[in-house]
Amino acid sequence: MQWKPKRHSQLSLHSQIVDWMTSLIQQGEWTIGMNLPPQRKLAEMLEVNRSTIIQVLDELKADGLLETKRGGGTFVANNSWNVLLNKSQPNWQKHIQMSIHKPNYHTIQLINEYEQDVSMIRLGTGELSPELLPTNLLEESLQSMTLNARDIGYSEPKGSKKLRMVLSDYLGKQGIHTSPESILIVSGALQALQLISVGLLEQQSIIFQEHPSYLNSIHPFQSAGMQMVSVQSNERLAETLKTLKGKRQSLFYTVPTLHNPTGRIMSVEERHQLLEICSTLQIPIIEDNVYQELLFEESVPALKSFDHSGQVLYLGSVSKTLSPGLRIGWVVAPEPVINRLADIKMQTDYGSSAFSQKIVAHWIETGLYDQHLGQLRQQLQQRTSFVERILTKDFKEVATWDKPKGGFYIWLRFNEPIVNKGLFLKLIKQKVLINPGYIYDPNDMHHIRLSYAYASLAELQEGLAILLSIIKLQ
Amino acid sequence: MQWKPKRHSQLSLHSQIVDWMTSLIQQGEWTIGMNLPPQRKLAEMLEVNRSTIIQVLDELKADGLLETKRGGGTFVANNSWNVLLNKSQPNWQKHIQMSIHKPNYHTIQLINEYEQDVSMIRLGTGELSPELLPTNLLEESLQSMTLNARDIGYSEPKGSKKLRMVLSDYLGKQGIHTSPESILIVSGALQALQLISVGLLEQQSIIFQEHPSYLNSIHPFQSAGMQMVSVQSNERLAETLKTLKGKRQSLFYTVPTLHNPTGRIMSVEERHQLLEICSTLQIPIIEDNVYQELLFEESVPALKSFDHSGQVLYLGSVSKTLSPGLRIGWVVAPEPVINRLADIKMQTDYGSSAFSQKIVAHWIETGLYDQHLGQLRQQLQQRTSFVERILTKDFKEVATWDKPKGGFYIWLRFNEPIVNKGLFLKLIKQKVLINPGYIYDPNDMHHIRLSYAYASLAELQEGLAILLSIIKLQ
Repeated sequence: MQWKPKRHSQLSLHSQIVDWMTSLIQQGEWTIGMNLPPQRKLAEMLEVNRSTIIQVLDELKADGLLETKRGGGTFVANNSWNVLLNKSQPNWQKHIQMSIHKPNYHTIQLINEYEQDVSMIRLGTGELSPELLPTNLLEESLQSMTLNARDIGYSEPKGSKKLRMVLSDYLGKQGIHTSPESILIVSGALQALQLISVGLLEQQSIIFQEHPSYLNSIHPFQSAGMQMVSVQSNERLAETLKTLKGKRQSLFYTVPTLHNPTGRIMSVEERHQLLEICSTLQIPIIEDNVYQELLFEESVPALKSFDHSGQVLYLGSVSKTLSPGLRIGWVVAPEPVINRLADIKMQTDYGSSAFSQKIVAHWIETGLYDQHLGQLRQQLQQRTSFVERILTKDFKEVATWDKPKGGFYIWLRFNEPIVNKGLFLKLIKQKVLINPGYIYDPNDMHHIRLSYAYASLAELQEGLAILLSIIKLQ
Repeated sequence: MQWKPKRHSQLSLHSQIVDWMTSLIQQGEWTIGMNLPPQRKLAEMLEVNRSTIIQVLDELKADGLLETKRGGGTFVANNSWNVLLNKSQPNWQKHIQMSIHKPNYHTIQLINEYEQDVSMIRLGTGELSPELLPTNLLEESLQSMTLNARDIGYSEPKGSKKLRMVLSDYLGKQGIHTSPESILIVSGALQALQLISVGLLEQQSIIFQEHPSYLNSIHPFQSAGMQMVSVQSNERLAETLKTLKGKRQSLFYTVPTLHNPTGRIMSVEERHQLLEICSTLQIPIIEDNVYQELLFEESVPALKSFDHSGQVLYLGSVSKTLSPGLRIGWVVAPEPVINRLADIKMQTDYGSSAFSQKIVAHWIETGLYDQHLGQLRQQLQQRTSFVERILTKDFKEVATWDKPKGGFYIWLRFNEPIVNKGLFLKLIKQKVLINPGYIYDPNDMHHIRLSYAYASLAELQEGLAILLSIIKLQ
């Protein structure tokens, strides 16, 4: 919100705010049924006393523009519009409620919202800290970039040919042999999931996922009417998948390397086994491998590198390693599958940013990317040690955890089932933002996904101290 | 396709190609049921004689890896995989056929495909010619750009605050008064339609559209289960909308300024009337205004500038004016609607390219954008005159058209109903690509959308001559 009342105006602060709110309702920016921010927050935003806000809201309620509901909260009144102009506006609330796509969980909406507040300490963010991003080198590479007019038009359906050729080489070195024609450039791995959801599955298909799973925190499949089924990886997996699948189409989503949120790494044997089971049952696999390059020790071969029957849809991205703002990821899959996904991508957004694609191709091709990854892994490892020292010192009696083998996360398990929405909200009041385990498994009240990648070391220290003090009060 | 057989190898060309195709099938890049390119095309791509290709295909057919179907065409055989390894692969063709999203029309898939071939003359492309893009100035602005680490992380749900503030000013000058909180940055206007489709409508809602309509050439609403209804703008419009809508949710899609494909401009009276009708019936309007800045003469006020009840979802973009490769557009709507669309955008691709957003903010803020638009309009106007001279000289007896008032297109109407898929394919053989009217209205066999924006002047001249000669042979 940009507007603030003027201190030295002929109109009182109160009148200015009344006029401003009225005009927001009149212009339709504030719609019928919209929930106003709390009084305290309004006062903060407009830099006035809370008493001024109370006076304004009372006046607008008396005018019939606002109304209060039971349980608190002030809303734009149903008949506000009639009051103003005796006209009708679309019932947007109804439009939103009855539409197809699921909203984000409220907890995730709050996370998205509070992440904009720079005073928050972000203990859960799955993103590199600004200080870990190669900002200066990216700036330099922009300066050295030459543009060609053909580069900046609409791109080919599968994305920049140059980037696909560079990726074909790059992936080849990791044992994934693919031609550029079998690669699709997407705006991050999340978009790949969206495209797969509407482009490769009939409605009511089953999406098998690990337990817990990142997929529970987003809704690309749920919003398309798919059924999510969490499975445990044990000796009865084949039997379980066969029974649950029945005659329906299905798909197995896995993060085999540095699993989100647990950080687990699937062994080579487990990988072969999963591929064989899914191959026998004709269940395609989505291998989400966006953390692969952040392994501290030696690399594990991707499922895709053992795949000789076009069973695996492989996802990669630079969002976790180079810059999420680029919005560049890729899918590797059999050519007809890529053609299909590219066709839908063309109908969705006509391709990803040509500028971003050019930057990524440049970084991978010149080796800048590999150099940066080497340094990044070291820096993340230092951050891990720092956080582990704090945990060992202060959390040993209340929680357990595994030493991270790479990536961003420690899957911190509290001995007591205390991680609920109440705790999440209490921490927000103390300016600490966490990713509670229940967004990855609705029944989980034991875990938080602790990220050592985003906050500064000082913030990590302070945030963990606040977390501990609140837990001790529970 | 990158691979080509080696001329000086111990293996014959024929054996090399057999091995290559076998490995593509084995690795699952070519899947069961996949249609191979025609023999002539394969020969061209691999730079061998067609007889070599025939020999290769015969051998692979005899091996059971390929098969021919009635009506021609060579396919990867159903049992190819058993032949190779006695293993099963997912039935991707079935996955694709039964999935949710509609494929592009075959004609549009062909357009997307042939647009990659630089030897084609593109008479229909809705895109600025490479020579009209401000490539050098864009390159310079990249060089002068300073990056801030916070700029290149995940963006706010609604997009870069800076860009939204710049747009709020920019749109204000056009009479559209909106706060940055009521603006959502999207990856082009097409993505806005996708988000609206799944975020603001219940299934089976009615999408009213003009006749003909750009919407017929894309499928964001159809794929989400909406019903498309074309309406004529006449004195019975209110009655028609009321009857067809019934009790269902609905939405009216319009391109009031420089309509795609017809180039028509709605008068101010018509705009007021449409807004009033839709307001009374509580039908929200999507105003797709991406050609607004390409008006040759004076500007027409947007529907949104008359909208005081949050009725209009306004779409803008730089794809038609600055560079489609940026993939940046925007939606202006009431704040709760923008919040909803932003929430879905976060679940779709976590925001648009931060780099692209930064470039666009810079261009608009510094006035570079306005300067460029001035020149661009002049250049487009010169191209219009050039094409009109050709039409007047050569097409007067076979077709009619209106003088364009801006934008990219002449909606060329042939006296005879000759614009069918046969003509489209014949022209492709002559290396000319058109956008036939039937992709905007399935019953239209009279029009082509002639674009004077993309091809060079020499290509426009040659392409039109080829078009004329083929039409005269019909």
